[in-house]
Amino acid sequence: MSSLKKVVLAYSGGLDTSVIARWLQETYDVEVVTFTADIGQGEEVEPARAKAKAMGIKEIYIEDLREEFVRDYVFPMFRANTIYEGEYLLGTSIARPLIAKRLVEIANETGADAISHGATGKGNDQVRFELGAYALKPGIKVIAPWREWDLNSREKLMDYCKQHNIPVDFAKQKTKSPYSMDANLLHISYEGGILEDPWEEAEEGMWRWSVSPEAAPDTPTYVTLTYKTGDVVAIDGVEMSPATVLETLNKVGGANGVGRLDIVENRYVGMKSRGCYETPGGTILLKAHRAIESLTLDREVAHLKDALMPKYAEMIYNGYWWSPERKMLQVAIDESQHVVNGDVRVKLYKGNVSVAGRRSDDSLFDGKIATFEDDAGAYNQKDAEGFIKLNALRMRIAAGKGRNLF
Amino acid sequence: MSSLKKVVLAYSGGLDTSVIARWLQETYDVEVVTFTADIGQGEEVEPARAKAKAMGIKEIYIEDLREEFVRDYVFPMFRANTIYEGEYLLGTSIARPLIAKRLVEIANETGADAISHGATGKGNDQVRFELGAYALKPGIKVIAPWREWDLNSREKLMDYCKQHNIPVDFAKQKTKSPYSMDANLLHISYEGGILEDPWEEAEEGMWRWSVSPEAAPDTPTYVTLTYKTGDVVAIDGVEMSPATVLETLNKVGGANGVGRLDIVENRYVGMKSRGCYETPGGTILLKAHRAIESLTLDREVAHLKDALMPKYAEMIYNGYWWSPERKMLQVAIDESQHVVNGDVRVKLYKGNVSVAGRRSDDSLFDGKIATFEDDAGAYNQKDAEGFIKLNALRMRIAAGKGRNLF
Amino acid sequence: MSSLKKVVLAYSGGLDTSVIARWLQETYDVEVVTFTADIGQGEEVEPARAKAKAMGIKEIYIEDLREEFVRDYVFPMFRANTIYEGEYLLGTSIARPLIAKRLVEIANETGADAISHGATGKGNDQVRFELGAYALKPGIKVIAPWREWDLNSREKLMDYCKQHNIPVDFAKQKTKSPYSMDANLLHISYEGGILEDPWEEAEEGMWRWSVSPEAAPDTPTYVTLTYKTGDVVAIDGVEMSPATVLETLNKVGGANGVGRLDIVENRYVGMKSRGCYETPGGTILLKAHRAIESLTLDREVAHLKDALMPKYAEMIYNGYWWSPERKMLQVAIDESQHVVNGDVRVKLYKGNVSVAGRRSDDSLFDGKIATFEDDAGAYNQKDAEGFIKLNALRMRIAAGKGRNLF
Amino acid sequence: MSSLKKVVLAYSGGLDTSVIARWLQETYDVEVVTFTADIGQGEEVEPARAKAKAMGIKEIYIEDLREEFVRDYVFPMFRANTIYEGEYLLGTSIARPLIAKRLVEIANETGADAISHGATGKGNDQVRFELGAYALKPGIKVIAPWREWDLNSREKLMDYCKQHNIPVDFAKQKTKSPYSMDANLLHISYEGGILEDPWEEAEEGMWRWSVSPEAAPDTPTYVTLTYKTGDVVAIDGVEMSPATVLETLNKVGGANGVGRLDIVENRYVGMKSRGCYETPGGTILLKAHRAIESLTLDREVAHLKDALMPKYAEMIYNGYWWSPERKMLQVAIDESQHVVNGDVRVKLYKGNVSVAGRRSDDSLFDGKIATFEDDAGAYNQKDAEGFIKLNALRMRIAAGKGRNLF
Repeated sequence: MSSLKKVVLAYSGGLDTSVIARWLQETYDVEVVTFTADIGQGEEVEPARAKAKAMGIKEIYIEDLREEFVRDYVFPMFRANTIYEGEYLLGTSIARPLIAKRLVEIANETGADAISHGATGKGNDQVRFELGAYALKPGIKVIAPWREWDLNSREKLMDYCKQHNIPVDFAKQKTKSPYSMDANLLHISYEGGILEDPWEEAEEGMWRWSVSPEAAPDTPTYVTLTYKTGDVVAIDGVEMSPATVLETLNKVGGANGVGRLDIVENRYVGMKSRGCYETPGGTILLKAHRAIESLTLDREVAHLKDALMPKYAEMIYNGYWWSPERKMLQVAIDESQHVVNGDVRVKLYKGNVSVAGRRSDDSLFDGKIATFEDDAGAYNQKDAEGFIKLNALRMRIAAGKGRNLF
Repeated sequence: MSSLKKVVLAYSGGLDTSVIARWLQETYDVEVVTFTADIGQGEEVEPARAKAKAMGIKEIYIEDLREEFVRDYVFPMFRANTIYEGEYLLGTSIARPLIAKRLVEIANETGADAISHGATGKGNDQVRFELGAYALKPGIKVIAPWREWDLNSREKLMDYCKQHNIPVDFAKQKTKSPYSMDANLLHISYEGGILEDPWEEAEEGMWRWSVSPEAAPDTPTYVTLTYKTGDVVAIDGVEMSPATVLETLNKVGGANGVGRLDIVENRYVGMKSRGCYETPGGTILLKAHRAIESLTLDREVAHLKDALMPKYAEMIYNGYWWSPERKMLQVAIDESQHVVNGDVRVKLYKGNVSVAGRRSDDSLFDGKIATFEDDAGAYNQKDAEGFIKLNALRMRIAAGKGRNLF
Repeated sequence: MSSLKKVVLAYSGGLDTSVIARWLQETYDVEVVTFTADIGQGEEVEPARAKAKAMGIKEIYIEDLREEFVRDYVFPMFRANTIYEGEYLLGTSIARPLIAKRLVEIANETGADAISHGATGKGNDQVRFELGAYALKPGIKVIAPWREWDLNSREKLMDYCKQHNIPVDFAKQKTKSPYSMDANLLHISYEGGILEDPWEEAEEGMWRWSVSPEAAPDTPTYVTLTYKTGDVVAIDGVEMSPATVLETLNKVGGANGVGRLDIVENRYVGMKSRGCYETPGGTILLKAHRAIESLTLDREVAHLKDALMPKYAEMIYNGYWWSPERKMLQVAIDESQHVVNGDVRVKLYKGNVSVAGRRSDDSLFDGKIATFEDDAGAYNQKDAEGFIKLNALRMRIAAGKGRNLF
Repeated sequence: MSSLKKVVLAYSGGLDTSVIARWLQETYDVEVVTFTADIGQGEEVEPARAKAKAMGIKEIYIEDLREEFVRDYVFPMFRANTIYEGEYLLGTSIARPLIAKRLVEIANETGADAISHGATGKGNDQVRFELGAYALKPGIKVIAPWREWDLNSREKLMDYCKQHNIPVDFAKQKTKSPYSMDANLLHISYEGGILEDPWEEAEEGMWRWSVSPEAAPDTPTYVTLTYKTGDVVAIDGVEMSPATVLETLNKVGGANGVGRLDIVENRYVGMKSRGCYETPGGTILLKAHRAIESLTLDREVAHLKDALMPKYAEMIYNGYWWSPERKMLQVAIDESQHVVNGDVRVKLYKGNVSVAGRRSDDSLFDGKIATFEDDAGAYNQKDAEGFIKLNALRMRIAAGKGRNLF
């Protein structure tokens, strides 16, 4: 243990990671470097500086990573129409590789030989942090206090704080949510509490980012998204940066009750868990991206993407963003997006996102051929006979030889 | 042409297929057998009898296939959480194999050597009818009038009617929808008209099966679905037949504005087309089935199903229900459903379907392990370290040898 | 540690597992039950009885599992044309689930609360044994001595033998192969020694089950395999049991230099390793099964099987035979095999297996259609035009709109 | 018909395409442009010039495309370890897209509005030519004489020649092979004749490119292939161009009896056909490429490639080389090949290709970790326990709740 010299800690500024910082100093006798990132979780990051200083931390990293997060992680993921297990938009999963990358880079800059994080030993996040770190810096050491220490109850944590002079904001602790939460620009998640009974409905008071569909406005809101090579570059005609796109959609989505989700999911470590999520902007992005692709993508490319997507989602969920197989899929996905340009008009209304229109200079929709009216010879209906006959041939031969499909 | 003796026609009783019946008699000098099925399209089928008789048809089949349709086609499809191109619930596609099968069976019963249908040469339905027919009766002949005749405008059709004394209900023709529609117990579809411009929003007056979300009740409706081996067997505790399940869900879904969809899809014959769909019950079924599976299916089985689903959906969309490859996938899907038992409580509100709870005697959710509280040793957090280390090993070795993932 | 009472040990009768038996008695103070199986490894299993008795073992299981092994594991696997990483026929992998199952069953019979095995902590076999055991008996304890003890060199093992009066056949030890080997009716494998350099060619003296191609007979041997529902039931017209089929093919294959393989493979635990394999009978089975399928399987079923195979192979290699996902794939594979009946004639010559002919009452080969001669109208060549035109339509539309594929 | 002005004909110089040239002139009254390419079929292409001139052809293209063929088609395909239906190396399929591309380019250069070819209406080649042409030039017309004319027997062809003064080399016709053959630098194929009975063994006299294994040298030949980003760039240390690589391997492979194949395959047009192939160089390339990948590719990348390969092979076999989906897969495959560098030493002996060694500066094989000897702590065997425990968790939970896998 004594061999470690410096550890970079993913530090939120909250109580748990403050305890970890002190515990690392005490237990490992290491210098701690804190890293606090604004990835859109909706809390100030600057206060973490004073708290870190108070614990004697000398190297303090506080960074605004919102643009990088959306541009290099969220957007590439949405190019694949990624959903895990048919429902989950991977809001937590997609933020972890960015944190892992920065932990490693800061370790390189500061000469640290280890990283540490506040994820528990039961969840997916430990895996995502650590797989990323090992993939980017193979010799790095990882300290995961929740897997090591015995401070496995609120009481023991409080005792530890008292013993080690870690200031506790008791007012805040009392009003603490009964849920385990995680937030970034893509989503906020809730686990634990009454959610541990999957038959129990989530209470209205739990949700933080969206109004309920019932409380949303009685008139719909229309929004037009402009796509360029698969990414949204403008909303209602106004060009904006990736993070601004997502913030804007979160706002309008949340105001219209869009993006709540309540699921039971399968963790990579082998258990089922129940989680609730609010992903207002992401829910809009998924619907709209499919719509612009429906107009611009070749059919077989679209189907190939659909066939690959579950695997790609699994990679991200399980923590393999930083892997050669994810990169390999990403180049294929990105290759398909050159033509994904145009506008999608969506209607938001009390929890619903529906597509009201889509148009594109790269549209493959051919009105002359698709029409039910006279097409002036654009399509020869007689071609269909041969098409069907040869597609049926193998089955006709089989049936002719007595194969029975009934 | 003269070699054909008897043809079984998929006969709706409407104008188009009445023209076809007469055209077959005239053009091919064949005896026509009509087959009219109630698959829940919401129109009386009995009137078809008199119309057929008036044209001199002697063998008239009129059948209620609603239970068979839902039990043997819709339910098996929903076991796979089937969606085509991320959106479409395959409402038209799944009805065709049943029609194809009955056409062939009636051909066998009546000694007919051909079948005929009213699908155009541009669409998917011709493929679905004909692939099914060829697969089940390889020597069958198919007559597809829309690919053969020159009655390719409303005017020419009307002229034909006048010339051949086919009675036309002009009042009905005048109020005819501008849309090409298809309906069965699973859905109603709309194509053509202003929909041929994908940027144009569908008009409210088009929709027939559901109220708009805006017009739906201001308070939610809760419904509990009971699953047995992957199929719904009871609603709110009342056991009911498959068709009754779907009718019931259509009613409650439609009343709550659930199930509207507006997409651009890729047809098997190679073009993109724009379609609108109302699938109230099916939309509920998909959400609820995923929910009961989330509790009862093993993770890897669920992921395997997700990986296979796009292929399975493609088979159904393209018309390969009656194929050995669909059967092969079906046995795998069905094998997974033995444990898919339990209740799902869904909340319907102004177009939204959300899951409020799920429970099952076959639940794999283990509260003792999943809990954020003390789990009394049910799960050893230290196991996670080895799990992560070995999963990372291949990437650590690669990084150690200089591979760079950035 | 003291809580364990009885452990079932996978016991070969050799030195290593004898040391383990004693070590378990000493270290855990448990009663040891030995289980020794003949799965065709080519060594007598009966001598294990005396050795076990000499160590005071009271419950000794010695079983001939060859028929069960081939019938329930090898044959089902070959129905899928299973190959791992394009080369490996999974000879070791497929034997492990049977051992795991018997260990669990014997634990149930004898009231044992643990199992133990002699696989190292670096390999796949520990995973296969233990995943199987946990899946079949979730509360079982596993003792894996190679992961626990410090007897990690030959010297230390010998010292342990001396200290604990375990008889060592020094003559045998001296002539011990420099390779780590594993054998069963499907194959024999070699690892370690000079093979640890992947550039080094395996020495001729290493191979045990086959003559070299150079040393094989100068004239070919023809063998006819008769298939029933995907499995070989007769050779050269003589019906025989599964194990006898494999033994017979091993003999004739080995005599003709068939089935040697030298690869670098990726272990589930994350490292690459180099292995050499002799699989004479299996090599013939794979070639012949593909040949009989080529005649009897529908094209799309065959392609679906090919698409699923790598996943299925991975499941077996990684130790997930006893898993719901493997079962799910197996029912699909087995569903496809009802029609896989007929004869395949193979030619064996100096390492080559080639197909000389195949025939089947379930053949889908239609000479009338396939012929280059006049086919008397069995196939209408004009159908091809429509088939091609519609398959090209999506790409023609795209090219017409300026998409460039060059 | 009269609207066509100029047609580019894929012209071999042989009798059949000479008849086609004349038939096009007669039937369509068009100017014919001939295109004859050397893609390594082993016949002189220059004689085609005189023959074309004799028929009054003014625009005659004769080209050596061997380097382009191997570099841009064969090599990219082998990067994916492509095999169709487990056996076929796609020798015919991969040459068609190059021909299609040149036909279109020549049409563009010469202002032709149509292309024509000599492929029959029963085969795959018509599809490959025409899909490619339509994808690259959507307005092109295709004339496929074999689908149109009635010269469907040798006699009728001869009559046509007589009537139209097409010179016939009767000596050559008499010694004409009874097989339908196709050849290029990758392979030669045989169909028809006695091969139409799949039970009949191919006769020794049929094979043209390789000696039989029996007739091959009694001593093995060793060859070392050097790979750079997935392609062979040198043989036995001598750098050479792509076409020279393949020629060299064909020579040494053929001399050692390597690369014969006899299969029943499924054509895209729906029938099964029996074909024999000689692919000496390709057989070596496949084996060697897998070997160099086994050392240099990450496991999951390799498995992903294996999972995608059947789909990729299907695309090439069915004629979709010129498609956006093939391009999408290609970028993923190519992305994986940056690290596929190094040497493979293969042993050729009487039909066998075996790997004798592989080495690479990009090797991921880690002797320190893989070793059976003391690894000095490079790998912690205790990690395996947690790895197995968590991988087993979902199955242990299921078994604990009564799920039974037996």
